[in-house]
Amino acid sequence: MVTKKLKVIPDERGRLMEILRSDDELFRGFGQVYITTAYPGVVKAWHYHQRQFDNFAVIQGMAKVVLYDPREDSPTHGEINEFFAGIHNPLLIQIPPRVYHGFKCISAEEAVILNIPTKAYDYLNPDEYRLDPYNNTIGYDWERKDG
Amino acid sequence: MVTKKLKVIPDERGRLMEILRSDDELFRGFGQVYITTAYPGVVKAWHYHQRQFDNFAVIQGMAKVVLYDPREDSPTHGEINEFFAGIHNPLLIQIPPRVYHGFKCISAEEAVILNIPTKAYDYLNPDEYRLDPYNNTIGYDWERKDG
Repeated sequence: MVTKKLKVIPDERGRLMEILRSDDELFRGFGQVYITTAYPGVVKAWHYHQRQFDNFAVIQGMAKVVLYDPREDSPTHGEINEFFAGIHNPLLIQIPPRVYHGFKCISAEEAVILNIPTKAYDYLNPDEYRLDPYNNTIGYDWERKDG
Repeated sequence: MVTKKLKVIPDERGRLMEILRSDDELFRGFGQVYITTAYPGVVKAWHYHQRQFDNFAVIQGMAKVVLYDPREDSPTHGEINEFFAGIHNPLLIQIPPRVYHGFKCISAEEAVILNIPTKAYDYLNPDEYRLDPYNNTIGYDWERKDG
């Protein structure tokens, strides 16, 4: 899993932010661009892909983006990674194939996640494998941790 | 200039919308992805590019996207095109090289424009040519037309 810090350029008109460039070191090809959003409190999880890399950027609101690595051959096998990404932490998160991922909207406004996967979605044969967000073997608790 | 109607899939969790796919008929290569936003009433204009195509989608709020074709060799030479694009009209607008374009935020909330140009921005030698939004030879009035 690789990340890239994004740079916002704000001015009196609005903001500008580059997200992914074809000359970025982490660029691995272009499949498509889509957005997926979540209302406050909503969890969209768990997914993984066999072939594609995902490139997530939260461009509106804030989301908790969580990764779980079930790959037996990986140095981060069994590990959970939490990112608090969005307008207060502009970040590109690259998710490799076979790594479970999902997100929860933690802001009072809709969180908008932009994804640039390396393959276009195949309607007839989707490269997408799902687990229930709550009932699964990952054992991750999506609840907010107050303290 | 070519457009593609975008399809929003809303549910109780949020929304999902594909924007540009590598197998789309209008796809002409990937340079980068960035967002540019405008606060209510703000105009960002005029720009054109010598080499790149832009692919605009307004993914938050509403914007008036305006194109002006100054190309002598074009069947639409001298024409103005206005699009009211955004959450009420999800649309991908492809802007060819040498066509002036700009936008104005017409919603009460910030308009977020996603662009997927065919070339990555070259910091040292930008393929970007600008005119003042108001003082220019295009003669387009950005003011709201009430009626």
